[in-house]
Amino acid sequence: MATIIVSQNASVHEDAQALRNAFQGWGTDEKAIISILGHRNEFQRKQIRQAYEELYQEDLIKRLESELSGDFEKAVYRWILDPADRDAVLANVAIKKAETDYHVIIEISCILSPEDLLAVRRAYHCRYKRSLEEDVAAHTSGDLRKLLVALVTAYRYAGHEINERLAKSEADILSDAIKDKAYNNEEVIRILSSRSKAQLIASFNRYRDEHGTSITKNLLGDSDVGTLQKALHAAIRCISDPRKYFEKTVRNAIKGNGTDEDALTRVIVTRAERDLKDIKELYYQRNSVSLDHAVAKETAGDYKAFLLTLLGKED
Amino acid sequence: MATIIVSQNASVHEDAQALRNAFQGWGTDEKAIISILGHRNEFQRKQIRQAYEELYQEDLIKRLESELSGDFEKAVYRWILDPADRDAVLANVAIKKAETDYHVIIEISCILSPEDLLAVRRAYHCRYKRSLEEDVAAHTSGDLRKLLVALVTAYRYAGHEINERLAKSEADILSDAIKDKAYNNEEVIRILSSRSKAQLIASFNRYRDEHGTSITKNLLGDSDVGTLQKALHAAIRCISDPRKYFEKTVRNAIKGNGTDEDALTRVIVTRAERDLKDIKELYYQRNSVSLDHAVAKETAGDYKAFLLTLLGKED
Repeated sequence: MATIIVSQNASVHEDAQALRNAFQGWGTDEKAIISILGHRNEFQRKQIRQAYEELYQEDLIKRLESELSGDFEKAVYRWILDPADRDAVLANVAIKKAETDYHVIIEISCILSPEDLLAVRRAYHCRYKRSLEEDVAAHTSGDLRKLLVALVTAYRYAGHEINERLAKSEADILSDAIKDKAYNNEEVIRILSSRSKAQLIASFNRYRDEHGTSITKNLLGDSDVGTLQKALHAAIRCISDPRKYFEKTVRNAIKGNGTDEDALTRVIVTRAERDLKDIKELYYQRNSVSLDHAVAKETAGDYKAFLLTLLGKED
Repeated sequence: MATIIVSQNASVHEDAQALRNAFQGWGTDEKAIISILGHRNEFQRKQIRQAYEELYQEDLIKRLESELSGDFEKAVYRWILDPADRDAVLANVAIKKAETDYHVIIEISCILSPEDLLAVRRAYHCRYKRSLEEDVAAHTSGDLRKLLVALVTAYRYAGHEINERLAKSEADILSDAIKDKAYNNEEVIRILSSRSKAQLIASFNRYRDEHGTSITKNLLGDSDVGTLQKALHAAIRCISDPRKYFEKTVRNAIKGNGTDEDALTRVIVTRAERDLKDIKELYYQRNSVSLDHAVAKETAGDYKAFLLTLLGKED
């Protein structure tokens, strides 16, 4: 379930005017921006962008970029985009880092529905005049590249039918590869990138039944865990339990010295209208402290206020 | 340009009734079937299927399958399907041959527009409850599999922008791979499967400018040409000049002892509403005999009559 508290009787034109007022005069009224955009759903935000453009002949997104800064700006920018376009931006930012942040590519390709992944690939074309797979391939290499390109180009069957015989034989292939530490085995990549999610989950269950341990645990059993292993591990978790995957992602983003704002923003912004409530529950179960509390402790200012609003805090 | 002569004032209900009449009584009236379906465009054929189902509570396609046989049945069956569904069937048939007919997979993935290829992948899901890439991967192996899976999962950027610097560097990569006979070079597959068609054509042109010979010619320069080389050759031809590719495909299908009816039917049925007129012109230029004449010589009966109708013969 979603966390954001959506205002049902908001007027699109009033919202556009209120945002315009927030930009004008001396300094920007960040509180007003948060109280409006933090309580509007995807559809309302799109309408506000259109109304703002019509009223003021100005692109709301560009204006927000010029008015805001830092992590707050990034969070608002991601929030105001359509989901497919937002994921295209997240993917592009992740690809262009000095070392490609493969987690983002794996999340997009393994958590989104097959149709939603196509929508991201289409949005990527519009925005960057190149294909997503083209850019992934250009910025990665070796086995990681093979895995990421295969995942991002997949258009999995989305039905629920399961072939039990296949689940058994492919659980065996996965098991043999892990035993032999042959993580770059072609068959492993083929299975993870082409089978339907239902079929893969059946194979992972079969694996656990036969070995008494989950595939994700066995995969990280070595003392020296390489990048490919970590990427395979992330892909399997994204396919089998996205919410647990996200809980761990925010946990890692918050814990220790320094916060990983990019990861924290990404999880909250992309999941606030989907399943952030469930992720919050998992977080509480695992850490005995609420996610709101943890976020409040690790962040500050407008950025903090905005994240807490998306997390469902009443004004 | 298309070849079929479409009847503009046909009535969908009359067509459905006339087909029903053609099925009834002693024997089937194949001539009536050809004179109706051979002169209806994609949209009309779809409407006839729907009208027939409503009028007679019977699936027209199933009925046609039970009434017709042999190459004629196959040709009518392919013709009556929606293009994306037809390509899904063609791909499935090609995959399931004792040795996968990679030409069909390459045609679909390199000639269709990126959006049309997605439509085929979607139709494949509906029909077979699996993904196209899943089946391609399961029925092929080694380097050919790498190439086919990469091509079939591509969603190329469809714009016309060209990066000349990239065209130069990738023409060099292709050239080095051919010189070294490293046809399974990862970079070769990456380039062919991820770049936009406009960009690839720029790279092939660059290749020809630098070497004085086309990449397709150099690729088949060896005396002993392997499957992967042939497949790469087909992919490059499909990307750079689909019509010339199809001209050669029909030429090969017809020439010598015995006709390759599958290939002949495939080219005529899939191109009759698109560019079969251009393919016919190329055929005449190359062979000094009209394609209609050649097809008439190599085929017989209803199959011949149907192909000639799709080729634009007046009744």
